[in-house]
Amino acid sequence: MRQRSQDLRLRFDFNNMMSEYVGKEQGITKAQLKANSELCKKAFETVQENRGKGMMGWSELPYNQDQVVADILETAKAVRKSCKYFVVLGIGGSALGPIAVFQALKHLHYNDLKDKARKGPKFYVEDNVDPERMLALFDVIEPEKTIFNVITKSGSTSETMSQYLIIWDMLKQKFGERAKDHVIATTSMQSGNLIKIAKKEGLKTFYIPDSVGGRFSELCPVGLLPAAVLGIDIKKMLKGAAYIDKLCNKPDYTKNPAMAFAILQYLAFNQGKNVSVMMPYADSLKYMADWYCQLWAESLGKAVKKDGSPAFVGQTPVKSLGVTDQHSQVQLYTEGPFDKVVTFIAVDGYRGSVTIPDGCEEFPNVNFLCGHTLNELIDTERRATEYALTKKQRLNNTIYLPEVNEFTLGEFMFMLELATAYIGEMFGIDTYDQPGVEEGKNATYAMFGRVGYEEKRKELESAPKQSKDYIC
Amino acid sequence: MRQRSQDLRLRFDFNNMMSEYVGKEQGITKAQLKANSELCKKAFETVQENRGKGMMGWSELPYNQDQVVADILETAKAVRKSCKYFVVLGIGGSALGPIAVFQALKHLHYNDLKDKARKGPKFYVEDNVDPERMLALFDVIEPEKTIFNVITKSGSTSETMSQYLIIWDMLKQKFGERAKDHVIATTSMQSGNLIKIAKKEGLKTFYIPDSVGGRFSELCPVGLLPAAVLGIDIKKMLKGAAYIDKLCNKPDYTKNPAMAFAILQYLAFNQGKNVSVMMPYADSLKYMADWYCQLWAESLGKAVKKDGSPAFVGQTPVKSLGVTDQHSQVQLYTEGPFDKVVTFIAVDGYRGSVTIPDGCEEFPNVNFLCGHTLNELIDTERRATEYALTKKQRLNNTIYLPEVNEFTLGEFMFMLELATAYIGEMFGIDTYDQPGVEEGKNATYAMFGRVGYEEKRKELESAPKQSKDYIC
Repeated sequence: MRQRSQDLRLRFDFNNMMSEYVGKEQGITKAQLKANSELCKKAFETVQENRGKGMMGWSELPYNQDQVVADILETAKAVRKSCKYFVVLGIGGSALGPIAVFQALKHLHYNDLKDKARKGPKFYVEDNVDPERMLALFDVIEPEKTIFNVITKSGSTSETMSQYLIIWDMLKQKFGERAKDHVIATTSMQSGNLIKIAKKEGLKTFYIPDSVGGRFSELCPVGLLPAAVLGIDIKKMLKGAAYIDKLCNKPDYTKNPAMAFAILQYLAFNQGKNVSVMMPYADSLKYMADWYCQLWAESLGKAVKKDGSPAFVGQTPVKSLGVTDQHSQVQLYTEGPFDKVVTFIAVDGYRGSVTIPDGCEEFPNVNFLCGHTLNELIDTERRATEYALTKKQRLNNTIYLPEVNEFTLGEFMFMLELATAYIGEMFGIDTYDQPGVEEGKNATYAMFGRVGYEEKRKELESAPKQSKDYIC
Repeated sequence: MRQRSQDLRLRFDFNNMMSEYVGKEQGITKAQLKANSELCKKAFETVQENRGKGMMGWSELPYNQDQVVADILETAKAVRKSCKYFVVLGIGGSALGPIAVFQALKHLHYNDLKDKARKGPKFYVEDNVDPERMLALFDVIEPEKTIFNVITKSGSTSETMSQYLIIWDMLKQKFGERAKDHVIATTSMQSGNLIKIAKKEGLKTFYIPDSVGGRFSELCPVGLLPAAVLGIDIKKMLKGAAYIDKLCNKPDYTKNPAMAFAILQYLAFNQGKNVSVMMPYADSLKYMADWYCQLWAESLGKAVKKDGSPAFVGQTPVKSLGVTDQHSQVQLYTEGPFDKVVTFIAVDGYRGSVTIPDGCEEFPNVNFLCGHTLNELIDTERRATEYALTKKQRLNNTIYLPEVNEFTLGEFMFMLELATAYIGEMFGIDTYDQPGVEEGKNATYAMFGRVGYEEKRKELESAPKQSKDYIC
């Protein structure tokens, strides 16, 4: 049965952000929202004007990739035929999107399925340089049946390039000239090392537009290729993104869910809510929270505004999982400091149902569960947690997905990208840079003796020696 | 080679919490610490006095389980022989410890290993009631080769008992009288439903002391049985706990690492650091951060002090992973609000080494990595991140583990349990209750029509209806 787009429309419910529901002391008022409608309008207009320009290439990804998608689908088909293991080498934005979409749309124990049931390659994303992790990977793959997708736009990401060096050396030793058949590069078309390496070695290559930053890259080949290799309908993902984009084509927060999300978080942050919890009630969406954490943290955690004045803004995003973390974090959420906004993600329809059968008739404290479904239980617990938080005057809101599929994920991710763009404008910061990671990168280069970092090395060597008094 | 305990001693380095290193504006001063030595002493003494009493049964677990351990080891041996899948049914404290220890001490792709290499049952922890998750589990296990360990102290945890009902029904249908051979119960000896059910059905049972709460239960049969089934040396875990316990037998924060951790976080919280990031630089310790998140959040997130006055305290714990989250969260940590303490976990020696081979000779920006090991890279990046945070006046400290093994994990967990007990006393709160989760539980019961919750149901029904104005 073909579903209509409007039946798959996500909904954003922010009743429990408002003073009528969560109380005057913590809640946001209608008057406040109205007073900020000009701010919303300005943010909206700036984002609109900059679409496709500078680092806002991401906004056009739902529309300008027909050719790319065709190429990806062709490659994916061949990969699915030829390999048993598909390994992404990437970190940050090159890993979080692929992981999140994989978890959302494939079997929850995908790699554990027998080949026949899995119907596609086993999937690994190597987003760390822990030596134990690399050794563990070699224990479970067969190189002759493996394709590695090395993803880095700049080609200078130390972690990914280290992995590439290790993998390439292994492939060369094993397969000689045929090594290149085991690697696909996803990188910048114009600049950086990886594109040069790819050309030299003759690797199949997909391109990351220079105007698309890592954390906004899931809907370009970074995310689309792994998804397609897994048999995920990437056209539908892009359609979902385009659908929500159209829905968000006005500044009015009562009609534009991305704007509503942005202005509410903005006001909440200014009222001391420096923590943003993302809490999906679905195992499939667990890593969507991780994806959100990068988007929100790296885009908004900034020390300086565009005009040069100090900012020091940015909520700390926290990933949580319903109902699991009710037994870990909800005590803090209901009773701790008034410093959070909790965003629930609810799913209207799960892709399966389990009934709790009769049993334990002598134990009414257990037996009351019988006859209900797990579907009812997880949804009831979400509503109960929402109720408990609201009663304790804790700000919360809910993003509803009619179901988890390619279309709704496209909506979800694009909506949050838009929201990030809006709130970045409200804060007056550069949403797309990440100057704060340079210091650590440079210190690493210096310690590794990279040419050009001699000054930094001197600086490090002259740092005050640690005191033994402060070690125990 | 037998290692000496002192060679496995963990170290706590808090140089970068101090004003000498992180700057006067944010840092903690020696004078502050001295001024609070009486507070430390009082917290220490109260914790000492209460050892083994009330809900402080956890403090004696390293010493009073000889009999229990013997029983566990015998059972584990039989389980390892008879089953191919070992499934924990539990949530919160009944899941986080087992997951964390599994991840820390077993192969990072354990379930993906061939039977011969794995040498023990596949391991699943089912800590949610998502129907898709339950259906996914059924796709990958063979019930006739599976043992389920159902863990709930009270026997009234809705999630775990729902899972039990589903599993028991399935087992009964398949195996009739032999169903009981597939279930091990871990629960209270005296009270609750599960012990009654276990007796009625004749289940093998292990006991959770009534004086041990969920989040402090990893070192009792809750954690020890799954660990032993996985072939982990549980005696060594308990020895590590006892070792650090002895090290912490004085109130002086310069000698007691748990006290140092507690007083520093306490002072930091009072200076506006309401976020506590736990960032291990090892994939093996990834879920130790989750375990810590429950311990810290649920113990310290409290609205009321023991004397009845308002508290509203508790840092929000955040799990992060080095180096992975350098590409996701560190931008925020270095440039966002001054609202965090970052706790790094460093590992002196990884259990394997990978050298980055020669290659990319034409590309000096890549080639500088060659000849180094991943071990050097991950450790250098940790130190570089520490340097960058410190330079930007961001409070951070580091727990060093000489290596990841049973002994050091025992130390690590017990140290943080002690630190939690100390800081709870400093806040003046009840560290061991969780009143904030009751409201949500009761609302769930009411919505499920459980007898005795009619009043709550009425309350829910009379809650203000949501406004459509606040949905888009």
